[in-house]
Amino acid sequence: MTTYRTILMGFGNVGRAVANLWLQRGAQIEREHDISLRFVMVADRSGAALDPGGLDLPRLLEVKAATGAVAAYPGAELGLGGAEAISHIEADLLLEASPTSVRTGEPGLSHIRAAMSHGMHVVNANKGPLVVAYHDLMRLARAENVAFLNSATVAAPIPALDIARYSLHGAQVESIEAVPNGTTNYILTLMEEGRSLDDGIRAAQQAGIAETDPSLDVDGWDSAAKIIILANTLMGGSVRLDDVSVQGIRSVGADELRDLRRRGQALKLLATVRRDGDELSLSVAPARLPLDHPLAILRGSGMGILFHTDLLGDLCVTVTGDDSPFGTAQAMLRDVVNIGR
Amino acid sequence: MTTYRTILMGFGNVGRAVANLWLQRGAQIEREHDISLRFVMVADRSGAALDPGGLDLPRLLEVKAATGAVAAYPGAELGLGGAEAISHIEADLLLEASPTSVRTGEPGLSHIRAAMSHGMHVVNANKGPLVVAYHDLMRLARAENVAFLNSATVAAPIPALDIARYSLHGAQVESIEAVPNGTTNYILTLMEEGRSLDDGIRAAQQAGIAETDPSLDVDGWDSAAKIIILANTLMGGSVRLDDVSVQGIRSVGADELRDLRRRGQALKLLATVRRDGDELSLSVAPARLPLDHPLAILRGSGMGILFHTDLLGDLCVTVTGDDSPFGTAQAMLRDVVNIGR
Repeated sequence: MTTYRTILMGFGNVGRAVANLWLQRGAQIEREHDISLRFVMVADRSGAALDPGGLDLPRLLEVKAATGAVAAYPGAELGLGGAEAISHIEADLLLEASPTSVRTGEPGLSHIRAAMSHGMHVVNANKGPLVVAYHDLMRLARAENVAFLNSATVAAPIPALDIARYSLHGAQVESIEAVPNGTTNYILTLMEEGRSLDDGIRAAQQAGIAETDPSLDVDGWDSAAKIIILANTLMGGSVRLDDVSVQGIRSVGADELRDLRRRGQALKLLATVRRDGDELSLSVAPARLPLDHPLAILRGSGMGILFHTDLLGDLCVTVTGDDSPFGTAQAMLRDVVNIGR
Repeated sequence: MTTYRTILMGFGNVGRAVANLWLQRGAQIEREHDISLRFVMVADRSGAALDPGGLDLPRLLEVKAATGAVAAYPGAELGLGGAEAISHIEADLLLEASPTSVRTGEPGLSHIRAAMSHGMHVVNANKGPLVVAYHDLMRLARAENVAFLNSATVAAPIPALDIARYSLHGAQVESIEAVPNGTTNYILTLMEEGRSLDDGIRAAQQAGIAETDPSLDVDGWDSAAKIIILANTLMGGSVRLDDVSVQGIRSVGADELRDLRRRGQALKLLATVRRDGDELSLSVAPARLPLDHPLAILRGSGMGILFHTDLLGDLCVTVTGDDSPFGTAQAMLRDVVNIGR
């Protein structure tokens, strides 16, 4: 049994889902894959809970639910600086799930650099660091001889990065079309049924799908981050946020959506990347798709990615019916299992 | 660089596609994955070409194209018995691509056993041995400490077995719906456009999609073999051909298909497996699907697999536009690359 002494940065929806999923399925993963996690540090903005012998996860979840703060865990250190703390902990693995900034990549970027520099593997759910510094981080991981896996960053239940890693050898991805943001797809689905954009946003917030500030989703930035990660991972790109033409769904009208459907089309917030000579061309924008397009049939919070390849035809992976953060948590745990391979 | 001394059994569409793909993309795979293949034996029904230093693949392809027989390769041994020959060759890897029998599993079953018993890894494109002896072969592979990978056996361009291996840790598959046979889907698509079953079969044969004897596809046996492999691999099953209720498409009428589509449904040859208490329940039969079902939109030789999971929602993988045997060949090469992990 390999036991990873584990640091979990971020204890919001994703971080707590990782803890809960480990409590539910950890024994199964230990049995089937000879891998175990010992959580030696869990941190949020309030502070860090620390225990080299392993934190009491049920108690930590209770404390967080009751107070909203990891700092209320017995013996926790208040406001401990993230990267600084990582540098001083004996650990083997960082699970990075702190809040995303696609502009600066922080604070996750510093967490990841600190962890790699101290010889830790990194399993990352945070898009920001990849959008800002994908190739730098890949180089650092190689130099430090640590694993750096990011399945949770791109429409997590869809094994897009696993497919890149394990299933496309010898084949080339020519272009990608994706509906990688479930929140906007949920809102567009409600708008097709006659609701306004603002109504759709409120409903998505009530369903726990949209954040309090929905602009990351609604204005297309989350989709842009994901198509950048796909372009850099699957198509050899070296693309940043300024290279993507980004338009969200604020200009879309409910009438337009219903008219389109009557004419046999669906409007989706589509993220695309294609080769354009030696360059990659990326965009995020509302797009009209015929109803028999595999991304057009996605309703509710469904997501999908369509890979156009040279050897394998058009490979499409979709997911529907996953509105919980467990899909993201599972993506992190499957990366942990795959580190050893 | 790891060089596998390789035996290729079967030099029909799939075997030749493997040789051609290696000629086209082998250098790329060597560069990216530090893995190489040296073909020391290639055999078909006529005989075996042998060279411990590595066969001349372009010449072998020419000879096969000109004469239809590997036996015409310079120095080839005539009618060399498959399993017997494998036992006497110094090799590290068997690529099994000989003709399938889902009833007996032979000759592939004997090839695979001989290879494993002599310490060779096996990458297999042949459904028959898995349908007849899945668990026996898995046990033998573990006992001999060799890899046994089968990506090419289930709708090859779809990374179904890769997803099981690398992407579902901690999650459970509750049921599977699949359209795993492109030939019948191609015929049904033509029938929707008004062609008869016999016309559809002839068109599929002319397009190189259907075999001369189309019954394996048309009567549902190919689909049955694939859903058995999925059930045994992803759902812990121990299922054989007699456990599957199998109905093909011979009773389907073109009028029925067109009527259904007018009523917003599509008819597909659907293979399913679901849990039924402690047992698995499997069937292959024509089924009516609503037009927004992710398998209903598959046209032509498209294939798809829909996994209903407990943690990740409904995950659907489809492929369209791959009518060549290169998808199957690529599945074999990706398994070779993944052996090392």
